Amino acid sequence: MKKQRKTSGIIIIGNEILSGKTLEKNSNFMCKELFRIGVSCEEIVIIKDDKSRIIEKLNNFRKKYSFVFTSGGIGPTHDDITSDSVACALGKKLILNTEAKRRLEKHYADDVLTKARLKMAYMPENSTLIDNPVSVAPGFSIQNIFVFPGVPKIMQVMFKEKVKSFDEGLRYYKKTISTTLSEGIIGEYIEKIQNKFNTLEIGSYPYFKKNSFGVSLVIKGEKDLEVSKASNEIYNYIESINGNPEIF
Amino acid sequence: MKKQRKTSGIIIIGNEILSGKTLEKNSNFMCKELFRIGVSCEEIVIIKDDKSRIIEKLNNFRKKYSFVFTSGGIGPTHDDITSDSVACALGKKLILNTEAKRRLEKHYADDVLTKARLKMAYMPENSTLIDNPVSVAPGFSIQNIFVFPGVPKIMQVMFKEKVKSFDEGLRYYKKTISTTLSEGIIGEYIEKIQNKFNTLEIGSYPYFKKNSFGVSLVIKGEKDLEVSKASNEIYNYIESINGNPEIF
Repeated sequence: MKKQRKTSGIIIIGNEILSGKTLEKNSNFMCKELFRIGVSCEEIVIIKDDKSRIIEKLNNFRKKYSFVFTSGGIGPTHDDITSDSVACALGKKLILNTEAKRRLEKHYADDVLTKARLKMAYMPENSTLIDNPVSVAPGFSIQNIFVFPGVPKIMQVMFKEKVKSFDEGLRYYKKTISTTLSEGIIGEYIEKIQNKFNTLEIGSYPYFKKNSFGVSLVIKGEKDLEVSKASNEIYNYIESINGNPEIF
Repeated sequence: MKKQRKTSGIIIIGNEILSGKTLEKNSNFMCKELFRIGVSCEEIVIIKDDKSRIIEKLNNFRKKYSFVFTSGGIGPTHDDITSDSVACALGKKLILNTEAKRRLEKHYADDVLTKARLKMAYMPENSTLIDNPVSVAPGFSIQNIFVFPGVPKIMQVMFKEKVKSFDEGLRYYKKTISTTLSEGIIGEYIEKIQNKFNTLEIGSYPYFKKNSFGVSLVIKGEKDLEVSKASNEIYNYIESINGNPEIF
């Protein structure tokens, strides 16, 4: 039986992104990693530190996608409400996770394990810890929800390690063809090719550099051979109309 | 009667973002502009070039928020399906906008107005054009939906100009206080202040620089005086426990 490609949705939590203070880059890191291991990212949503909205999105995403990833809102302050929201979404109790507490106690042995810091050990009952080799306070997973912090350097290490286990070898194949012609010139031809190779996903992205502009065409699919066939056709066509194609 | 602050939601459309190829920055630009003029951004969603999903989000957002902004998918290629999706979401016909066509004809006078380029003049009936001073092909608005291109330089000019008219003078007031103490130390105190000033939104953001770390506290609200009062209390507290506060 053919293996089914897994899907995912990303929920980014934080007022600072919606007010424009912070340029959100965590979802880009996650998308790159997911693409690499062949998990499809279907949707990213960015919402405020608002419990009812987080719960709504969690319940929507966990039914739609194989995996749900969250980033943000698991620190020690009052605006960190993700763990509580996950518990509520699943109808679980938020409890002190003894292993998470043990790790924090060890880490803060020479400092104070304040009430605020201890907050980071509260998780929905039956959660599985996600190791944090950078700042110790763990993330967690429960059912198909995976909860990561918002600080990029910490999230990245944890995410990269965690999603290794989701790699089922279902790679995407991809070719990129650039041309100095514009979308308006090659658009009709590319549409025909898209219709001919309808299992592939062909994207068209104009680029503007200092002294040049043109288009990058991305040909993506599940089968190496199909991607190569479509790419070669496009390359040859662009060459025939003097579009200076480059393939990589 | 007190003026009601307007809300908004942003829909970013493009496969290239979900595969990690492109780092999405358009929503950050939009959020900054909206914050500046006092329109609240409640939610950002990033979805694929998929008509049924775009329609679903449009219909969801247009009922929830005062304004809906989209970015991406209005170019000349087969994967540009935003205009068609807006028409479908509203139950309108997609028609050739004669003024948009006239602008494209003028712009491409020395070149070819290909079928692909002419596609950019198709919009839902009764749309209002949004001027594009960079590459001519206009965006459009219909009801509370505002449709912008995805190319950042073009979107930015168009968006900045368009949202000027949404400025009703309802500013946000904001102070930022930085400290060299960690969230785990000040967390409990900040929670008390948040509870005391419950109309304000106090955010806590740890930062990590090369040789230092600490926290930025952002105090945001509708009233200048409230923001100042809360900020002064926090500043004085942090100073009293030697947290090296800086306010700006």
